[in-house]
Amino acid sequence: MTIKNGKKMMFIHVRPWVNMNRNGGVMSENKIYKPKQISGFPEWLPEYRAVELAWMDKIRAVFERYGFCSIETPSVEEVDALLAKGGETEKEIYTLTRLHADDHDKDSRLALHFDLTVPLARYVAQHCNDLVFPFKRYQIQKSWRGERPQKGRFREFYQCDIDVVNVDGLPLHFDAELPAVMFEAYQSLDIPPVEMHISNRKIIIGYLQGLGVKDIPFVTRELDKIDKIGVDKTRLILAMHFELEAQELSSRERLDLAQKCLDIVQIQFADNGFVEKVRTLGVANDLLDEGLKELSFVMDNLKHLPQGSVIADLGIIRGLDYYTGTVIEVRFKDKPLSIGGGGRYDNLAGAFINQKLPGIGVSIGLTRLFAMLLDEGYIKPVAKCPTQILVVLPAEERRAEAAATAHSLRLRGVNVELYHSATKVKKQMSYAEKKGIPYVWFPPFEDGQPHEVKNMATGEQVQADPSVWKI
Amino acid sequence: MTIKNGKKMMFIHVRPWVNMNRNGGVMSENKIYKPKQISGFPEWLPEYRAVELAWMDKIRAVFERYGFCSIETPSVEEVDALLAKGGETEKEIYTLTRLHADDHDKDSRLALHFDLTVPLARYVAQHCNDLVFPFKRYQIQKSWRGERPQKGRFREFYQCDIDVVNVDGLPLHFDAELPAVMFEAYQSLDIPPVEMHISNRKIIIGYLQGLGVKDIPFVTRELDKIDKIGVDKTRLILAMHFELEAQELSSRERLDLAQKCLDIVQIQFADNGFVEKVRTLGVANDLLDEGLKELSFVMDNLKHLPQGSVIADLGIIRGLDYYTGTVIEVRFKDKPLSIGGGGRYDNLAGAFINQKLPGIGVSIGLTRLFAMLLDEGYIKPVAKCPTQILVVLPAEERRAEAAATAHSLRLRGVNVELYHSATKVKKQMSYAEKKGIPYVWFPPFEDGQPHEVKNMATGEQVQADPSVWKI
Repeated sequence: MTIKNGKKMMFIHVRPWVNMNRNGGVMSENKIYKPKQISGFPEWLPEYRAVELAWMDKIRAVFERYGFCSIETPSVEEVDALLAKGGETEKEIYTLTRLHADDHDKDSRLALHFDLTVPLARYVAQHCNDLVFPFKRYQIQKSWRGERPQKGRFREFYQCDIDVVNVDGLPLHFDAELPAVMFEAYQSLDIPPVEMHISNRKIIIGYLQGLGVKDIPFVTRELDKIDKIGVDKTRLILAMHFELEAQELSSRERLDLAQKCLDIVQIQFADNGFVEKVRTLGVANDLLDEGLKELSFVMDNLKHLPQGSVIADLGIIRGLDYYTGTVIEVRFKDKPLSIGGGGRYDNLAGAFINQKLPGIGVSIGLTRLFAMLLDEGYIKPVAKCPTQILVVLPAEERRAEAAATAHSLRLRGVNVELYHSATKVKKQMSYAEKKGIPYVWFPPFEDGQPHEVKNMATGEQVQADPSVWKI
Repeated sequence: MTIKNGKKMMFIHVRPWVNMNRNGGVMSENKIYKPKQISGFPEWLPEYRAVELAWMDKIRAVFERYGFCSIETPSVEEVDALLAKGGETEKEIYTLTRLHADDHDKDSRLALHFDLTVPLARYVAQHCNDLVFPFKRYQIQKSWRGERPQKGRFREFYQCDIDVVNVDGLPLHFDAELPAVMFEAYQSLDIPPVEMHISNRKIIIGYLQGLGVKDIPFVTRELDKIDKIGVDKTRLILAMHFELEAQELSSRERLDLAQKCLDIVQIQFADNGFVEKVRTLGVANDLLDEGLKELSFVMDNLKHLPQGSVIADLGIIRGLDYYTGTVIEVRFKDKPLSIGGGGRYDNLAGAFINQKLPGIGVSIGLTRLFAMLLDEGYIKPVAKCPTQILVVLPAEERRAEAAATAHSLRLRGVNVELYHSATKVKKQMSYAEKKGIPYVWFPPFEDGQPHEVKNMATGEQVQADPSVWKI
């Protein structure tokens, strides 16, 4: 290091700061942290992400078409808020800790939300004086669950939720509106046809009460698993359960009772025929009647949807035990897989506010649906970028003119890239091809020449005026 | 509890399951968890969220107008990946822990990302074989920092980033393109006018090298704080520093040297006049020349932006020390606040891949900007919902007809709510008013009557046909 004294100039050979950072800061080239996929946390390449984004746009447009407003809640809630409702979700919660935590963290236990319903309940309770009821909101956001990752399960996933919450009572109107919105949302996506399966909890509970069943939660839980367990095995499990619950019955009677339980959940009608069918089972009480009446109203008000796309399916139970009326499940027509659903709860925010706030909500499991169709090859990649035209840069000295062309096209809403270097035209066109850009624009290479535009799909190349051209 | 034996019917008075959950599951009415705002995690009421969403739509449209593709990375990265670059961000990282962690968590230390640059670097390194370079991406996502919350600082915040990453070399083209995109993005929002302040790190570093300064990081750090510390104090601090670094200088010479350092950072020009001005300071070397040339190119290629909206500002240093060329800061014209910025880095993903990937990126601090303008009352609330028409429900027996009217209007892209109950028309209109719905539609109240629509702003009410009506 030489130091040359002088009033104005000193030349010191230091290790220049600029270069100090060229190897990526503190890392030497030997210390590479090789990145890998984190299980359960999906990410997509641009040509698939564009599809996911288009899906969200379409879903959002349908939600807004019915007047639902957007809200977004923080990714975190206080742990106590997440657990206030109780339930079995505790172990799936991710809590946050600062890497170097200090005092000011101690009192706030924060965790990522595991669904969008608890945050909604907290939001409505917290802001209820500022909201107009019935409050209709949609929320397209990520949730997190610390589950053991497995195929089709994600630790981070998008859900698209709509809910209506009201004070005191919530008109049945919304029990029909929500499946209609949901159906339209699914229909807006380019996916296999779906069916809305709808029931009402009051039917199964009224019916089981009518049958004299005591442990209704147990029985409904078993009935909810028929698809996995099978009808015969479920009948046996129920009969065995009745051995404890109704010892006065003969084993024949217990099997009959189990069969009675099975009878109702196998009722499926594309219209109101389910009412008559339930009547033939010979059970009647107020709760059951109420359920039948409510489901009939819902079916009546979904008649505008395509024939066969709405099924009154009394086998729909839905695991979450806070549903109290209408329950909805969305399935593909050609396979029994659930791809969304929801239902009505008599008191959404009971954990947060001393006021009855009934609600009804449905949810699209976006990430799960998207990943499944991606996996099946059903979702095709689109272009790797939103660019509609690549403007060729003919030569460095023509940069200003080419930039003006790009600018002029952009002013009319066209997505335009100006190629970044005055390299060979062939190389520039190859870039357009690789990125799936549909048009290439040639500004004049010499003064007096016309502009031309090439359609990359057809190969057609024509003269064009950048100030009027449209796709 | 009475049990009535019988083959078919048993009536058991159990505490009905439906009611068991009406008080909100496990919570009794006395155990209310009163929700409160979590400091640093903002959320907005629907009438402001709609503005935020509109902002994101506009910003995204501008990004796509220039051909940037969307990507989204998981909210989490492995802690090692987040720390691979080094730096002082460690203590701001939020790590995740499952509330009931067990074995399968032990090996994966996950944390929320604190910016979108590290995730981009990891993404590009991981997927580089599947991307087309130059890779131009945008990312509108939340980031998290466990900072002590204070006014204007958030623990969860949206950033809108665009970056271009290339293999080996990255054309200077993008150093001009990114400020142009950024300017257009800000201009698309209804906010006070902004200025793009641009410099090039090579200028200040070349200049300081030319002056013989040894500890360039220290000096640039001090120069970066002038706005906070003031010119006079900064001069003293630098002079004191030179007492250690250049003991051979007299105290007069040290003050002169400090002044020399200050001279360059006070240069601001709305055109290429800065080159001549720097020349008058009497320092010259290759690095400085390179910087001046690059900044001139950038300024030349931003001439299409409104006069005075781009400033060559040699005082722009930007704290993050991985910038190696162009540095950009966005400020309001009428106050010196930074509301966005970015720059060029010679090697983005050096921590993740043994390949040189230079990049340039800029970022809009969306949440910070939005919250600030909200706080100042600059952002006005919009309607509480996206509904454009409320269709009145004249009577329960006219529900099907009213629903058909709503359906017909929706088919043409209008956002429609059908009122949920056949209550008094006055009550239905008051709902429209409270939600800020601009039109109310009256289907026939009796057979043979015409449809009518009322403009809520003007009070004008006219006959209309639901099959052709448009806003």
